[in-house]
Amino acid sequence: MSPSLRAFFQNDRFARHNGIELLDAGPGWAKAQLAVGDHHLNAANVVHGGALFTLADLVFAVASNSHGRLALGINVSISYLKAARGPLLTAEAQEVACSSKLGTYTMEVRDAAGELVALAQGTVFRKDSPLPA
Amino acid sequence: MSPSLRAFFQNDRFARHNGIELLDAGPGWAKAQLAVGDHHLNAANVVHGGALFTLADLVFAVASNSHGRLALGINVSISYLKAARGPLLTAEAQEVACSSKLGTYTMEVRDAAGELVALAQGTVFRKDSPLPA
Amino acid sequence: MSPSLRAFFQNDRFARHNGIELLDAGPGWAKAQLAVGDHHLNAANVVHGGALFTLADLVFAVASNSHGRLALGINVSISYLKAARGPLLTAEAQEVACSSKLGTYTMEVRDAAGELVALAQGTVFRKDSPLPA
Amino acid sequence: MSPSLRAFFQNDRFARHNGIELLDAGPGWAKAQLAVGDHHLNAANVVHGGALFTLADLVFAVASNSHGRLALGINVSISYLKAARGPLLTAEAQEVACSSKLGTYTMEVRDAAGELVALAQGTVFRKDSPLPA
Repeated sequence: MSPSLRAFFQNDRFARHNGIELLDAGPGWAKAQLAVGDHHLNAANVVHGGALFTLADLVFAVASNSHGRLALGINVSISYLKAARGPLLTAEAQEVACSSKLGTYTMEVRDAAGELVALAQGTVFRKDSPLPA
Repeated sequence: MSPSLRAFFQNDRFARHNGIELLDAGPGWAKAQLAVGDHHLNAANVVHGGALFTLADLVFAVASNSHGRLALGINVSISYLKAARGPLLTAEAQEVACSSKLGTYTMEVRDAAGELVALAQGTVFRKDSPLPA
Repeated sequence: MSPSLRAFFQNDRFARHNGIELLDAGPGWAKAQLAVGDHHLNAANVVHGGALFTLADLVFAVASNSHGRLALGINVSISYLKAARGPLLTAEAQEVACSSKLGTYTMEVRDAAGELVALAQGTVFRKDSPLPA
Repeated sequence: MSPSLRAFFQNDRFARHNGIELLDAGPGWAKAQLAVGDHHLNAANVVHGGALFTLADLVFAVASNSHGRLALGINVSISYLKAARGPLLTAEAQEVACSSKLGTYTMEVRDAAGELVALAQGTVFRKDSPLPA
């Protein structure tokens, strides 16, 4: 992962507050993990949809900003495929299209057994400005 | 809000960890708020998409469980309409359809000026079981 | 509806091929209808998801192009709320946000009894060019 | 493709009216094509979003009904990646999850050069009844 990309996302305080760890990234992709704790659970005692989404959202953000231009999320659709319990979740984003103004990504969230627990698809608007230092 | 619905969602640890406060709910709707802090921000210094989503997801969960039967999220689509900064965000969910097995909801997230910052749409699968006590 | 907007959409051959009739439009909104025929049905004998989507997509296109600048669809999420049978379906699009580059719209499809059969949400990219004459 | 699955979808009149040809299918997947004609174009002279969606929707329907139980679409999210012009478009659906009540699928639409023009993700509700004969 480029030092400037890593440095930029070290400033992602919501991801940090929720224990999301960026593992690696390259042009158009990113990978992260979440060690599930009690504070990631919802009222039904499974991992909260917001936690799964936030994990997917981080790799979406990193992958879409990986070309060095600031990218802002426009929309995301997420499907929940099975109840997620932990102890470790991983997410990976892959670019499926990238034009001068827009980029589209798929995000997969998997549990410790490698099973898919959520699948998301999102689009960013690519600004003309570089990532802030 | 019915005492059993409130009691059930007091067990939502991810919402609590992220400072989301359930304000009120009734059959097919719910309202919550989030006082934005530094730990809700992303690398670009605006409220994280995951925080906006989690706020929307909580009212989605409460509204869809408000009839007393356990409802599990199947999918959510969220559109980000403008950068959200705080200091207070509110979200409201409204039921648009509810059959024996499925329910569909819209969720609006607004900033302190009342402007729409995110709009989401989600569907649940309604189990035959009641909310766990 | 402005004459230039109407003229532009008279060139929508897929909408015409499928019997979709644009009823009215103004800044940020549009309304259309579809008289359901046998050729709109799917294998299960209800109105095809593609027909419901196309009806919603037309009002999305008209509403998002109603400001006179060319708008291209980026994504749409549609939820099917009940089986649609006809004889007449109507769709209405409403703008929920519009910035210099992006616009977001909700689209409701209703049956002859006024019941909601599908709900969609979509975003466009707004080009700098005007509608082609 | 099983004869009963093929027979069921020969009754899809909207797909036929729009020239969509089912090529092949198996458990959890399906493939179809569309030879683009003038009547598939929108006002901007590219393939209509509704035509791309309908092509994706057919393979979604076939793949999700391929197990012999009646499956009804709940929702679909589609992202448009580039303007599609033809002369031939193909779509393929792949199952990503299938439980007793729900199934989730991704659908890719490609142009004659094999480039991705649209990417969709959809969920069905699986009824207890078999496909009607």
